[in-house]
Amino acid sequence: MTTIPMTDRTTLRDALFRPRRIALIGASADARKNTGRAQRYLRKHGFTGKIFPVNPNREEIDGERCYADLDLVPGPIEHAYVLLGTRLVEQAVEKCAERNVPVVTILADGFADAGREGRALQERIVDKARAAGLRIVGPNSMGGIDLHARCALCVNAALDAETLIAGGLSLISHSGSVVGTLLSRGNARGIGFAKMMGTGNEADLAIGEIGEMLVDDPETRAILLFLETIRDHRDIARMARRAYQAGKPVIAYKLGRSEAGSELATSHTGAIAGSDKSVDAFFRANGIVRVDTLESLFEAPTLLIGKRPAKTRRKAASVMTTTGGGGAMVVDRLGMLGVDVVAPTEEAVERLKESNVNISPGRLTDLTLAGTRKELVEATLGELLASDHSDAVVAVIGSSAQFKPHLAVEGILGPAQSKAGGKPLAVFLVPQADQSLKVLAEAGIAGFRTPESCADCVNAALEWRAPGDAEVNPTGDIAAARQAILGAGTPIMDERAARRVFAVLGIPGPAEAVINDLDGLSDLPSDLRYPLAAKILSPHIEHKMEAGGVVLGIADEAALGDACRRITETAHAREPDAELRGILVQEMERGLAEVIVGYRLDAQVGPIVLLGVGGTLAEIYRDGAVRTAPVTLDEAHEMIEEVKGLAPIRGYRSIPSGDLEALARTIAAFSDLARLDPIEVIEAEVNPLIVKGKGEGAVAVDGLMVCDLNQPPGGA
Amino acid sequence: MTTIPMTDRTTLRDALFRPRRIALIGASADARKNTGRAQRYLRKHGFTGKIFPVNPNREEIDGERCYADLDLVPGPIEHAYVLLGTRLVEQAVEKCAERNVPVVTILADGFADAGREGRALQERIVDKARAAGLRIVGPNSMGGIDLHARCALCVNAALDAETLIAGGLSLISHSGSVVGTLLSRGNARGIGFAKMMGTGNEADLAIGEIGEMLVDDPETRAILLFLETIRDHRDIARMARRAYQAGKPVIAYKLGRSEAGSELATSHTGAIAGSDKSVDAFFRANGIVRVDTLESLFEAPTLLIGKRPAKTRRKAASVMTTTGGGGAMVVDRLGMLGVDVVAPTEEAVERLKESNVNISPGRLTDLTLAGTRKELVEATLGELLASDHSDAVVAVIGSSAQFKPHLAVEGILGPAQSKAGGKPLAVFLVPQADQSLKVLAEAGIAGFRTPESCADCVNAALEWRAPGDAEVNPTGDIAAARQAILGAGTPIMDERAARRVFAVLGIPGPAEAVINDLDGLSDLPSDLRYPLAAKILSPHIEHKMEAGGVVLGIADEAALGDACRRITETAHAREPDAELRGILVQEMERGLAEVIVGYRLDAQVGPIVLLGVGGTLAEIYRDGAVRTAPVTLDEAHEMIEEVKGLAPIRGYRSIPSGDLEALARTIAAFSDLARLDPIEVIEAEVNPLIVKGKGEGAVAVDGLMVCDLNQPPGGA
Repeated sequence: MTTIPMTDRTTLRDALFRPRRIALIGASADARKNTGRAQRYLRKHGFTGKIFPVNPNREEIDGERCYADLDLVPGPIEHAYVLLGTRLVEQAVEKCAERNVPVVTILADGFADAGREGRALQERIVDKARAAGLRIVGPNSMGGIDLHARCALCVNAALDAETLIAGGLSLISHSGSVVGTLLSRGNARGIGFAKMMGTGNEADLAIGEIGEMLVDDPETRAILLFLETIRDHRDIARMARRAYQAGKPVIAYKLGRSEAGSELATSHTGAIAGSDKSVDAFFRANGIVRVDTLESLFEAPTLLIGKRPAKTRRKAASVMTTTGGGGAMVVDRLGMLGVDVVAPTEEAVERLKESNVNISPGRLTDLTLAGTRKELVEATLGELLASDHSDAVVAVIGSSAQFKPHLAVEGILGPAQSKAGGKPLAVFLVPQADQSLKVLAEAGIAGFRTPESCADCVNAALEWRAPGDAEVNPTGDIAAARQAILGAGTPIMDERAARRVFAVLGIPGPAEAVINDLDGLSDLPSDLRYPLAAKILSPHIEHKMEAGGVVLGIADEAALGDACRRITETAHAREPDAELRGILVQEMERGLAEVIVGYRLDAQVGPIVLLGVGGTLAEIYRDGAVRTAPVTLDEAHEMIEEVKGLAPIRGYRSIPSGDLEALARTIAAFSDLARLDPIEVIEAEVNPLIVKGKGEGAVAVDGLMVCDLNQPPGGA
Repeated sequence: MTTIPMTDRTTLRDALFRPRRIALIGASADARKNTGRAQRYLRKHGFTGKIFPVNPNREEIDGERCYADLDLVPGPIEHAYVLLGTRLVEQAVEKCAERNVPVVTILADGFADAGREGRALQERIVDKARAAGLRIVGPNSMGGIDLHARCALCVNAALDAETLIAGGLSLISHSGSVVGTLLSRGNARGIGFAKMMGTGNEADLAIGEIGEMLVDDPETRAILLFLETIRDHRDIARMARRAYQAGKPVIAYKLGRSEAGSELATSHTGAIAGSDKSVDAFFRANGIVRVDTLESLFEAPTLLIGKRPAKTRRKAASVMTTTGGGGAMVVDRLGMLGVDVVAPTEEAVERLKESNVNISPGRLTDLTLAGTRKELVEATLGELLASDHSDAVVAVIGSSAQFKPHLAVEGILGPAQSKAGGKPLAVFLVPQADQSLKVLAEAGIAGFRTPESCADCVNAALEWRAPGDAEVNPTGDIAAARQAILGAGTPIMDERAARRVFAVLGIPGPAEAVINDLDGLSDLPSDLRYPLAAKILSPHIEHKMEAGGVVLGIADEAALGDACRRITETAHAREPDAELRGILVQEMERGLAEVIVGYRLDAQVGPIVLLGVGGTLAEIYRDGAVRTAPVTLDEAHEMIEEVKGLAPIRGYRSIPSGDLEALARTIAAFSDLARLDPIEVIEAEVNPLIVKGKGEGAVAVDGLMVCDLNQPPGGA
């Protein structure tokens, strides 16, 4: 009983995707059952290695000798697929550990997806596996497929297909059934896959780590993710950045865009949901392209392979069409997604005219006047692909695509190949045109069968960004901020302690002082100018305003005395147990806008920074911008652009603009809260931050912060 | 040369869609040309009537005798298709008029779609046709197809298909190429059409009138519209209402959802664009179902045929699935569209348990635990379709749909048929499953190949409403309003005249008086209470505030004198030519919210009424509700619900609610401006309307109105 050495990622990848010696624990002879499929599919699709079915009730299954127990299997086992019911899994994993099986896939559900008890069982199994150096896929995994190695170690019924197309796309999916979905839909379009894996509950091996194996896989040209949640954001980020460097686009379809979907994903996989805006921010920060429609997952890759994100910030596309109606559908859809469809340059139009190609003027480069001919399509696409006035090109081909591919579709091939490496080129075929779609797929050109997925992918390509620069320097003094937090000595800080941290990060507060007893009123610093605000200082009163702990616009010392008395009395009456640390007295600040800057640990993607506008309406409209923290000043400016309710201070009509530089600095400084390792900030907020006029700065007039002081260094 | 009598709509429909004697004017013998296709396609698809090609250069085309001139064609001609170039069309139509051809289709473009000159030519042709009693399709029309009559009088290349499936769907499309698109895509799915028509520029016959022919067509079960614009809203409204009565759903896909798309549709067809929100309102008011994705056009009909809109206002659907991932995709998408996916009732779950069907708890009725079996699908769907806790049911079928339709897909057929007439049932097949989609299509069940179009159609079905009651009584005194407008005697009314009209419609204004000279200040009515507002009264000063013509919060008589002097001086200085009609003095009104109620003549759909919130943020967020006017009180309440920024006065947190009844009455009264025929109101607005607390009313403190007094009665 020798051991397969798991010395490196490649060896693990081979054991995972293309093992040569496979044990099927709990294999069934009933081909209709899930448990009977694995063996059948392996052989059906040309697996030439050893299969060891394990089942005490059978002598053989489908001509392979069957073993009563894993112990009896001769020689090393590279990968075991446990097909047993939930309650039998733990013991099977133990046996695999004894036999030094390096990778075990578990089919059964009923673990973390099924409540507390299942979660405990899952954790126990993982602990045992870790102790034995054994890696686990699942539980709740339908398995994986390596199409080049002809290893279909998977129970998805899509493998009933007679043939499978091997290609360059690899998929990792939380849902096993989606593996079959994309395989069958891709294959019907002539689009082939390299490796596919259903990860299920991800008790051990998860998206990020498996993805890294694909980054290094020579047969994988693009990595597709079907995500129900995000469990391993650090690994996924690292994987995506390496994939970007390797020129392999990572394309994600993620559930949880709606509240119901998010709730469902949570209950379905036992994961914790965060906000979908955070997920968008996470993808963008790490160079991951997010698509919105299912088939975009296999339609988008050819649009992106060999390309880089546009360096411009605009979202501008050129659209050429041989049919007015079809072209208009794509333009309309692109417009809904915020993509600007731009007319070709005058020079391009002139050059085309010289080659006898007359196109109609306007956004849509309409060839219907010129008629559908190969040379026209070639000339026009050549111009649009060469020009730098747009960052993507769409070709819409009408009825000729169905029966006369030589007219227009073939005119695409030349320009697409000669301009390879330049802008993404998307081709939408308006009629049913299966053959033309296959021609495009074979030529490595992105073909689309609906205007919706075409526009979705073009928009996704234009939203694509290079991974953000994680190594940028902090804005504020990180060491001093750590010190200030440790100095406060409590995980839940009061307003003043929180703002002291913000201050060392570079976020100023108003002039202020603390009154500890009413007799001390005359000791207030003489440069503190009325009107003043007075607020109760206590880490235990979260909603100071509601608790009667705030008085604003205090005009003079008499009024201040009244205010302090009222605040103290109310606090004693309403919150008798709260520790009171005096009354904070601040100069009233005025500005052009009140904004909210927040920091959270998102359940899926980790530290994020948020920007929003104060007031009821902004809350109702759910207006705000989110990024993973830390952010650069550039990213902070992007966030300011994104918040619609900040239009007034960005220079709206005759309204004076605010100090956007100061606001951006504040956001970037706030995002430095992500750098305080080993201290972990759980939540922090400035509400409101008063943004003043240009050059006049921004002031945090309130603040809160909650930390985890006991975080181990570099913790998960 | 006898004439075909156009005595009724049926005769016209036959001449349009299934003529027996067709002239092809400008027919070409070159099969590659558009002009060579009509004849070829007619014969290819089994046309058995007479074809008369007209072309002076040929003796015969494809075995049919060719005529040098229309005059030489023997006997009556039921339909002429003019295939000539733009400049030859006018003469050809004249010839058709001479020959009493009842219907002429024109292929050429270059008319209203190509600027002023083309528009003039188009109008001349229509005038000549009208004078001769001849009806025109196009220009810019690819023709039409009657699939049951085997009459493919159309040049779209989709007709190169060997066979066409006749069915119950009829399509009218502004775009001819979309006719081919839907024909080819529908046929590939086993979905057949009855009649199809590309209307192009709609110089004469347009969507509404052709649609009415389809309402009466026994072979048409649903009417599909592909719209680039709306040119004949009155006809379309009448058609849609008749179709609703006849139980034929009208389903529309309309371009112009984005600004770019709207601009394109405008330039492409020479139409005028209006707001897309108005289009939504128009569809809803007339019982038209709007879909958002292209294939929804032929996927939605089976969802709706034989059904009626739900009577509830909720959007609630039940979703059953045999695959977690696939089900979650649909639930997520439905959630994005605002559809609430609801769990089955406890009773249903219990009954299923008694039949040994164990479903997982929660929104998604997940059968994966129970396994995919026909009886389970039948039992579960039966329960979901019978229950009244949701208004639509979605069945999501996983991998079995591809190779094992007997497992799940066949389980759908029974419940779908036994519950026909009840809720809409949508079936999304997750894998590539062409055969199962055809099985569903043949059984008259709505099958979907993407989660996106499935959710789109289910949402559209739940948004479907019975046509609004156009005959509801007006809220205000229509005759008095007409009188007030005629009394004002000017198309552009000043604030006071406008509010006088609003007042007789039932919209109160503040207590007010007019000061004509400064000496008359003490003559102000004694019950006018300070603080007051003073505003310049002139029909020529549109933006009073900007022109220095408004002073608010006037505390006493001295201040009022100052204010009036300042207003008058400023007005004389800034607008020396404006006619001044004194100064309007009003009591200041205070309330809980300032809203805007507007009335417009929309370029596409006619009179609309709008509701919005005052202030910059509401403008930035483009928050508002639109309906076609007039509206009922119920519809006005729906509008109030729709405006997010009105959340505060609908009862948000601890904020007191506003007088929503008074606001609804105001909206309904304002919408009565659509009933003043022969006077046409072009634009009117109350900005702001002050909404007070519950039971305290709403007051229009400003107003404007522009009318067309010379409108002919019942004019277009």
